[in-house]
Amino acid sequence: MQSAPDIEKIAAWFQSLQQEITQGLELLDGKASFQSDIWQRAEGGGGDTRVIESGDILEKGGVNFSHVYGPMPEKIANRLQLTPGDTFHATGISLVIHPSHPLIPVIHMNLRFFLIPDTTYWFGGGIDVTPAYVFPEDAQWFHQYMADVCAPFGDWVYPEYKQACDRYFYLKHRDETRGIGGLFFDFLKPGERFQSLAEIWAFVQAVGKAFLSVYSELISRHRSAPFSEAQKEFQLWRRGRYVEFNLLYDKGTSFGLDTGGRTESILMSLPPVVEWKYNFIPEAGTAEAESMQYLKAIDWLGYTQ
Amino acid sequence: MQSAPDIEKIAAWFQSLQQEITQGLELLDGKASFQSDIWQRAEGGGGDTRVIESGDILEKGGVNFSHVYGPMPEKIANRLQLTPGDTFHATGISLVIHPSHPLIPVIHMNLRFFLIPDTTYWFGGGIDVTPAYVFPEDAQWFHQYMADVCAPFGDWVYPEYKQACDRYFYLKHRDETRGIGGLFFDFLKPGERFQSLAEIWAFVQAVGKAFLSVYSELISRHRSAPFSEAQKEFQLWRRGRYVEFNLLYDKGTSFGLDTGGRTESILMSLPPVVEWKYNFIPEAGTAEAESMQYLKAIDWLGYTQ
Repeated sequence: MQSAPDIEKIAAWFQSLQQEITQGLELLDGKASFQSDIWQRAEGGGGDTRVIESGDILEKGGVNFSHVYGPMPEKIANRLQLTPGDTFHATGISLVIHPSHPLIPVIHMNLRFFLIPDTTYWFGGGIDVTPAYVFPEDAQWFHQYMADVCAPFGDWVYPEYKQACDRYFYLKHRDETRGIGGLFFDFLKPGERFQSLAEIWAFVQAVGKAFLSVYSELISRHRSAPFSEAQKEFQLWRRGRYVEFNLLYDKGTSFGLDTGGRTESILMSLPPVVEWKYNFIPEAGTAEAESMQYLKAIDWLGYTQ
Repeated sequence: MQSAPDIEKIAAWFQSLQQEITQGLELLDGKASFQSDIWQRAEGGGGDTRVIESGDILEKGGVNFSHVYGPMPEKIANRLQLTPGDTFHATGISLVIHPSHPLIPVIHMNLRFFLIPDTTYWFGGGIDVTPAYVFPEDAQWFHQYMADVCAPFGDWVYPEYKQACDRYFYLKHRDETRGIGGLFFDFLKPGERFQSLAEIWAFVQAVGKAFLSVYSELISRHRSAPFSEAQKEFQLWRRGRYVEFNLLYDKGTSFGLDTGGRTESILMSLPPVVEWKYNFIPEAGTAEAESMQYLKAIDWLGYTQ
């Protein structure tokens, strides 16, 4: 890719990644299929919202692609401190998977590109994992995998985006991280950090291509393990935190809803079944209590048990 | 009450109302009891969070009293455009009941008083009803009851606070009201509308005293009706909208969490079990589809079927 970004090429790659990921997840699940909802935006562009429900592993999941464009709405312009009416493009892939098995974690990935032709552009996104039950060996494996993905792009990449992830996915009212973190980045354009568009694009693609390997591994580690009703209930309770984060703090959710995004595509991130219990605190010494102890910024690569 | 508000008297009345309401609800339920969680605030004051769970009718409910005071935290001062450090008092009662029976509505009431001695004070609050299944005859009865409560205080009271309620409990991203509305008011102090503190206080008390009669009637209308699994599922799905409203829009929730309120007392408003399904739209002609049609501002007192 040359110095001017090719929006069609970027969008086409995100769409091909959606296809690859949905096919891969269907194979992993073995029971349910993604249903595709193709939608159009009156002012320009549209998307393909793919949702899977009641699978063998995937209790509910969405893998969304969109490419919207047109004159920039005032609300978006104000938020981004740009000029209303300028032509903009936004394209990306966004996915959240809520597994039925309480030992398999929730996973989220988002890769996006924003462009105002001849003016500015940037990439953003990330990948992060939210287990109900935290297995330190899974967390270490996942973080090592993502550190390896980041390594070719510079020693600073993993630590910086790992810390940004811990900061972003944080529930202030609980003093808890949403899960065990991962990577989070935004406003990537050539400059001090990445020197070229080609480098950024290679990094974004590397993160996207990591998804299926990462989640296949996390699924295969736990899918055959038996689980109890009590573990399932703990999972439903932990999902409450996911809802609290997404509706109280997630900028993508509030920005999307506030700027007239497609409600059902945005809120597909919410879990299928959720429980709230007043003042529930897992009993000391249990696996549940131990899992809650890991909901903070942890240097997993330096972690020793 | 004379022209200077007596904070101790107001707080004591809210606390006695909490006692009356929790006793009344326990009698109605017949199975479960409220558990009281008495908490203190480091900077001054505290509260009594009373929660009931797994009742015969009351699947989850909270009736909270609090009276907090001390130097005004900067965050609260900024939000209210007041002076940080001035002594403030805030006292109130706040309740939400999530019934297990899908034909019995959720009910919410909040009455509160804010005071900066020798400077300013105001009352706020309201009562509103959120059915999964909307019965127009229930909605009419409830609105007539509240109109009768309002009538002694002026012809303007019911229409103004009824409209404010429809405006406040509105999910913009769904273009739906949260439920069938009720009353909503804020910043009540003697002025053009109410002429005296005594009048405002009598109005606030009248709303508070209405609660048990209103909810007893709504419960008794439906508690003996049989219901299906499908109706229960519709209720769990409708509860998703309650969560969306409270976490995305409710100012009390965001203000409370942001200013260091007690998280579990604030989030006791969230339902016990909730479902989200992608793009669920009730089939045309069903009771579920009809109920969704009522989620807008309706003049229930002038409504004819």
